[in-house]
Amino acid sequence: MHSRLGNAVQTAIQHGLLLPGTRLPAERSLAQSLALSRTTVLAAYNALKSDGWLESRAGSGTWVCAKPAAQARQRTYDAVLSNSSTLNLLQIDDSEVIDFAVGTPKPLSDLPRALYTLDPSIQTELLMERHYMPLGFPALRQAIAAYYTRRDLPTAADQILVTGGAQQAISLVTATYLQRGDSVLVESPTYFGALDVFRFAGARLAPVAVGLDHINASELRDRLPATGSRLLYLTPTYQNPTGATMPDRARREVAQLGEEFGVPIVEDHSLSELAIEEASQPPFIARYGAASNVITLGSLSKLFWAGLRVGWLRAPVGVVTKIARVKTAADLGSALVTQAIGAQLLQAMDEAKTIRREQLAAKRDLLAQLLREALPSWRFELPKGGLFLWVHLPGYDSRQFAQAAARHGVALTPGPLFAADDSFVEYLRIPYLLDEDRIRLGVQRLAEAWEAFMASSSFQTPRLNPIV
Amino acid sequence: MHSRLGNAVQTAIQHGLLLPGTRLPAERSLAQSLALSRTTVLAAYNALKSDGWLESRAGSGTWVCAKPAAQARQRTYDAVLSNSSTLNLLQIDDSEVIDFAVGTPKPLSDLPRALYTLDPSIQTELLMERHYMPLGFPALRQAIAAYYTRRDLPTAADQILVTGGAQQAISLVTATYLQRGDSVLVESPTYFGALDVFRFAGARLAPVAVGLDHINASELRDRLPATGSRLLYLTPTYQNPTGATMPDRARREVAQLGEEFGVPIVEDHSLSELAIEEASQPPFIARYGAASNVITLGSLSKLFWAGLRVGWLRAPVGVVTKIARVKTAADLGSALVTQAIGAQLLQAMDEAKTIRREQLAAKRDLLAQLLREALPSWRFELPKGGLFLWVHLPGYDSRQFAQAAARHGVALTPGPLFAADDSFVEYLRIPYLLDEDRIRLGVQRLAEAWEAFMASSSFQTPRLNPIV
Repeated sequence: MHSRLGNAVQTAIQHGLLLPGTRLPAERSLAQSLALSRTTVLAAYNALKSDGWLESRAGSGTWVCAKPAAQARQRTYDAVLSNSSTLNLLQIDDSEVIDFAVGTPKPLSDLPRALYTLDPSIQTELLMERHYMPLGFPALRQAIAAYYTRRDLPTAADQILVTGGAQQAISLVTATYLQRGDSVLVESPTYFGALDVFRFAGARLAPVAVGLDHINASELRDRLPATGSRLLYLTPTYQNPTGATMPDRARREVAQLGEEFGVPIVEDHSLSELAIEEASQPPFIARYGAASNVITLGSLSKLFWAGLRVGWLRAPVGVVTKIARVKTAADLGSALVTQAIGAQLLQAMDEAKTIRREQLAAKRDLLAQLLREALPSWRFELPKGGLFLWVHLPGYDSRQFAQAAARHGVALTPGPLFAADDSFVEYLRIPYLLDEDRIRLGVQRLAEAWEAFMASSSFQTPRLNPIV
Repeated sequence: MHSRLGNAVQTAIQHGLLLPGTRLPAERSLAQSLALSRTTVLAAYNALKSDGWLESRAGSGTWVCAKPAAQARQRTYDAVLSNSSTLNLLQIDDSEVIDFAVGTPKPLSDLPRALYTLDPSIQTELLMERHYMPLGFPALRQAIAAYYTRRDLPTAADQILVTGGAQQAISLVTATYLQRGDSVLVESPTYFGALDVFRFAGARLAPVAVGLDHINASELRDRLPATGSRLLYLTPTYQNPTGATMPDRARREVAQLGEEFGVPIVEDHSLSELAIEEASQPPFIARYGAASNVITLGSLSKLFWAGLRVGWLRAPVGVVTKIARVKTAADLGSALVTQAIGAQLLQAMDEAKTIRREQLAAKRDLLAQLLREALPSWRFELPKGGLFLWVHLPGYDSRQFAQAAARHGVALTPGPLFAADDSFVEYLRIPYLLDEDRIRLGVQRLAEAWEAFMASSSFQTPRLNPIV
């Protein structure tokens, strides 16, 4: 019996559920709450102490050991190895590891904290009478509609469906429009979370190359009929991961193609509010695609806080109703408290954008400068917004380097993670969103890892016989 | 232009997004926020006033009219007519209509309100550093594991996956185990939200009859191989909608059958904490199915508040990991604030059960007594727990009666909504969870509707040529 408890505690530590430096419950109270004998708990704690998972501190109970770096790195290494798993990447949570993998900023500490909480009287009076709202909390839907209307895309509240982040919007659209075996056109490279959804749905991925000017609309004109695709998924502004932005003219053409071929277009604007260079953005594709089914996705995750899980889709009312049926089956609607918080936060969007802009400009420039100094053979363009550098390692396999980096305490997302077809072997996506000292430490470790990687010739890509 | 605005407002009123007695924004401020001229807004408001949607109140602006009962009833009637749509049923929200359709109680007003909110310091300190937690918030996973362990089903935190209500758990399990065309065994009748999920997934529904003793395990032994089912979905305690509870012995046999045929079993316990009669419940099926894949679902929706959208599944760790990959693709994890609130609420479960028990006992007995007096030809058993009477209208079609009831201002869920195959034409599910005066008014209206229905011979089921 004590070994079962011991295993549970060990697994919890390994999965980061019990963090280093956490105090465990006293033996007596744990025994009571698990209906075990105190002897059993004591035996489990002792076994874990002798294995180095737990430690006693005089007079203050039993604690999870501060983890040795080696063990933390092993876990990151495992996560990177199984690099098709978003689940593993999201579980990297470890102060020993520099997370250059997940692309989500911390909440803004410069905004009033009250924006992130609900006044208790609002919560109890306004929310507790209601329960299921599959389409979303009315005040939030109205706030989102007003946000689009202000941005020159007139929108009514009933054109909005609230979702669990933009990720759920992708998932619901997929469930609505794609069946197993259907083809979906995607940018190449693109956001890996979208690829996850399409692969789980059994869809065939049809890639369209992204260049400095985003995708080429005339290539799309060929690819749409050639692939018979049923859906087009795009990240038009600060493309994830390349940072490219699709020009106005291409947006107009894409909308026209969607209409012509009757293919719904998903434009995912999760990163679009993260402008770094001052410049007016091109209109939403939906602005040109009123007659077709353009579905515009947005999210509060990047500007405010991903832990809220508040995203949405905007579409013609008929499309919203269709997808809302799928949302109802999926979860009967999103949590109301966080939606009410989301409606508050939307009021502060302009302020948040200004703060993020300054923050990201500084971080982007720092990361770029450090990389140029420490790793001069790496190549990248400076993006005008978004969260990422898309880095080319000419002649080397980023997956192999990511493993070397993991051994040096850095988690990376290699290029093939963003590919429909295992291409982009020589690329890495690196976010600029950690604190300055973490960015510095991260680049320093990358440089050390790169030196070790170069020294070990077996890690070099055989150029004449490329790994794909 | 004003007609587009007018349509949006009208649709919002029709969908219950703008409730009767709500004040609309002043013309000037609406014009400003939508970037329309004041004249346009004025014209739209005026048109809506002349159509009876809005009204001016002297000195205090423009208001949504208190809706005439007829209009509210029309909407309910539409919802009942399209009776396969959970989305429509959940949008019934109208003080004119007695909602005998949706089966979710209000939050408990007798619990301390503080349990439903987060201390702001906890929220900012504990949560805002973190963002994605696909498996769930650690404190909640631990609290759920402790809850099962106390109920004689020893559980570690890593056996728990937090979901957006039990509904999302059903949806994720389905995405994990069922492909288009696969067969799923379901109770007949069963919870319509589960049928929604299976139908959306393109699964074939294989019904197993529920009697007073729940399903018959030996029938299951025949049906499992005969249907080649890939999944078994059960509501073993206070079955939805019949209220039947599966005895201990049958649970043991079901677990054994799952093992024997290698079929995962979902046991949905969303209603199980709603005991009315004092009696110990049989063990979870998972207690007997350690070697097979028994997936146990739970939820805070019925005991505490459905608006939280906090549910979960409990399964062997390998199964949890497999489903967690699907959860990650679906939404990257549930909202953290509501999970932290959920962890608080779980501490008060015993208290909440006691309060609910007293509340539901009184409402159940009241509804039963009123129905016996007003509608003596209706037949039902008194359930020992849960939220519903499962009522037999011998010789009559409940779908036709539901339409008559809607015209009298009562929303009902006819039996075929709970059927895999359009059976249960003569049944209705009626929840006992409204306030006493609403229950009284509802039964009074049902009696009037029944009288009108009886008087109109065209509504009678032709007994020799039954509608199926």
